[in-house]
Amino acid sequence: MEAGTGRLAAFGDEIVGRIKELGEISEVPEHLARFFLTREHRAAADLILTWMRSAGMRAHLDAIGNVCGRYEGERPALPCLMLGSHYDTVRDAGRWDGPLGLITAISCVADLHKRGRRLPFAIEVTGFADEEGVRFASTLLGSRAVAGTFDASVLGARDNTGVSMRDALVQFGLDPEHVGAAARGRRELHAYIELHIEQGPVLEIEQLPVGVVTAISGATRLAASLTGMAGHAGTVPMRLRRDALAGAAECIVAVEEFCRSDRDGLVGTVGYVDAMPGATNVIPGQVSFTLDLRAPTDAHRKLAVADIARRLEAIAKRRKLGLQIDVTHENRTVPCAPWLKAQVAEAIAAEGYRVFELPSGAGHDGMAMIDIADVGMMFVRCRGGVSHHPDEHVDKADADAGARVLLRLIEDFRPRDVRSAAS
Amino acid sequence: MEAGTGRLAAFGDEIVGRIKELGEISEVPEHLARFFLTREHRAAADLILTWMRSAGMRAHLDAIGNVCGRYEGERPALPCLMLGSHYDTVRDAGRWDGPLGLITAISCVADLHKRGRRLPFAIEVTGFADEEGVRFASTLLGSRAVAGTFDASVLGARDNTGVSMRDALVQFGLDPEHVGAAARGRRELHAYIELHIEQGPVLEIEQLPVGVVTAISGATRLAASLTGMAGHAGTVPMRLRRDALAGAAECIVAVEEFCRSDRDGLVGTVGYVDAMPGATNVIPGQVSFTLDLRAPTDAHRKLAVADIARRLEAIAKRRKLGLQIDVTHENRTVPCAPWLKAQVAEAIAAEGYRVFELPSGAGHDGMAMIDIADVGMMFVRCRGGVSHHPDEHVDKADADAGARVLLRLIEDFRPRDVRSAAS
Repeated sequence: MEAGTGRLAAFGDEIVGRIKELGEISEVPEHLARFFLTREHRAAADLILTWMRSAGMRAHLDAIGNVCGRYEGERPALPCLMLGSHYDTVRDAGRWDGPLGLITAISCVADLHKRGRRLPFAIEVTGFADEEGVRFASTLLGSRAVAGTFDASVLGARDNTGVSMRDALVQFGLDPEHVGAAARGRRELHAYIELHIEQGPVLEIEQLPVGVVTAISGATRLAASLTGMAGHAGTVPMRLRRDALAGAAECIVAVEEFCRSDRDGLVGTVGYVDAMPGATNVIPGQVSFTLDLRAPTDAHRKLAVADIARRLEAIAKRRKLGLQIDVTHENRTVPCAPWLKAQVAEAIAAEGYRVFELPSGAGHDGMAMIDIADVGMMFVRCRGGVSHHPDEHVDKADADAGARVLLRLIEDFRPRDVRSAAS
Repeated sequence: MEAGTGRLAAFGDEIVGRIKELGEISEVPEHLARFFLTREHRAAADLILTWMRSAGMRAHLDAIGNVCGRYEGERPALPCLMLGSHYDTVRDAGRWDGPLGLITAISCVADLHKRGRRLPFAIEVTGFADEEGVRFASTLLGSRAVAGTFDASVLGARDNTGVSMRDALVQFGLDPEHVGAAARGRRELHAYIELHIEQGPVLEIEQLPVGVVTAISGATRLAASLTGMAGHAGTVPMRLRRDALAGAAECIVAVEEFCRSDRDGLVGTVGYVDAMPGATNVIPGQVSFTLDLRAPTDAHRKLAVADIARRLEAIAKRRKLGLQIDVTHENRTVPCAPWLKAQVAEAIAAEGYRVFELPSGAGHDGMAMIDIADVGMMFVRCRGGVSHHPDEHVDKADADAGARVLLRLIEDFRPRDVRSAAS
């Protein structure tokens, strides 16, 4: 822990400048929208490859359109520490979600390169081409290709203009039959570490620029439907009603109470509700609502789903309402490896910040990379927790703090097997 | 109470047959839709005028398109007992809501006529042309014209094809400048009494074919809006949320609890809710919902509105949500006159049924007629409380019971002044 980084300069200016430069590459001038296998994808990739090369890396576009840079270690062909994040965006996006991690990693490598510093492992920086999944409604395409879990059946998916992913790859200059060439082997990687904006308000409230991610929380999404009896708002006495919306309201309150009383990071959200027929003077006969549940472990989330389902069933039964609950989506939890969490924490402490752990409630490329590498993550504070919105913002000082921590983490990085041998 | 009716025949077959015949007159063959100042309005009016005339009445179409039949009393020009209901419908309507009261009244007069029975007062039967208010989004147009409260400013209202009410009146053969000619004077009427389907399930549960209406409940409609903070369903911990939908759900449950604990006929309904942005994985930042409150007295309803508003404000304050509540609609309560309630009850008892009182939560033409006459109402049981729906149904035996009670009521009717003089 004694060896500090010998970094040459503050990173903040460079990172903020590049965030802005990359953020100019958009499908439309009114807002930021940069999607998979588009002209903007190509323009962004070209820019990032330039940055990688000027940071002393060999850099290329892989078989799915990811940008891949490699900075060799003390000798050629060593396994790498892979850093990365994505460079596609949602529609009407902020500039920081994805690019911050990618640009920061390149700046760290550039600093090592300028100092001529080589480490006992290679460093690779990967910019994933499609994490958000806007164009083909399928997320993590870039990191799944790298992890070797790309599902060829999605090649037939079409965007909203009718273009298939297969044709889009060809138009982009890639070969849909050789996406597999992007896959990497477990032995090539010591670990995958990603820096990302928090997309939540916790670090801001904790007054910390950075935090250690404990896990990418798995998520279960449910579609619930309650069926009662529609009726005239004036003519059906309260005691004779089977009001589906009153029942749904009790369910929504119960979900909130259950999640609030949890002490292990469970969050539950009803984001959508629809009461039918939806007239002021008609008692709703049917209500649909969604439920999104996330927790830092799969076991905890699954227990919560079952417990909440029982509570909803009890409410429906007492109110004589029909209840249908369907699971519409399920993502496993990706725990961050304890040995990587420890090294992230050490780097944060070494840069003088209090070590604070938090789960990631949002999904990230680590969800795919876990299949070929242990995963570590660190979060950088973002203003107001706002993300997926043009107001998304990171202070320059926080971008700088993130880069200093990441550089410290890289320079102090001890691959797991080395560490095991030493202990 | 000793004098029974000398009625000639069961009414059920005639009523059910005419309900069916009138129900065939619809804008479209797929469902029942009969609106103000349309060809179907004209066809229905012609049919009803025929029935009125064959029942021994003079009958005409008035200046707003109501059908008006008059059966003279023991001598000409006596004040009348006015019976009536409406013959317009909602879209995709049932056949009974409105027509039952109108057809039953005509059948009762026909029975008197066949027996040559004249009473010490005239009987008028009015079929109101527009109670539902579908075409011009303004209710009670027919009865307001009769009550002399027709608001000429609505003549500029346009239907969804752009035709103004003024032009529609002209096309129908009426003079928009002379709607006032439909108005009747208070001295012309002893009372206005309406028979109508209940549109609720109470009589069915009480196992009674008929009931005494205590009042047409006034209604207050509110539009409420809660504003919190939208956020990512995964990244914002429960304790940091300002979830507008969880807040709305608590409000909806509170409204239901408040109304359920009321013992004086208060009903409250949240029929519409909209959560924004409405995505599965986004905490709702804003929620709009409606609230419909009705009670058998204005004082009770107004207290309830104020009390519920305070509860909603407390919920919003505790949750740090913005709350906006606007009154979008307000209808006064129309109490049924005690002396008419007593006579309806007597007629029900005389026909051998238990006397049961209930408020009307739905609106009726009595809401307008109260301005020129004391109002009485009786309800006839409808299956399942279903109304404004093709499944709306009244058993023939109940239609018959309603007619027997109405005829008894007519024959035993004592105008208020006569009664006062007698007591």
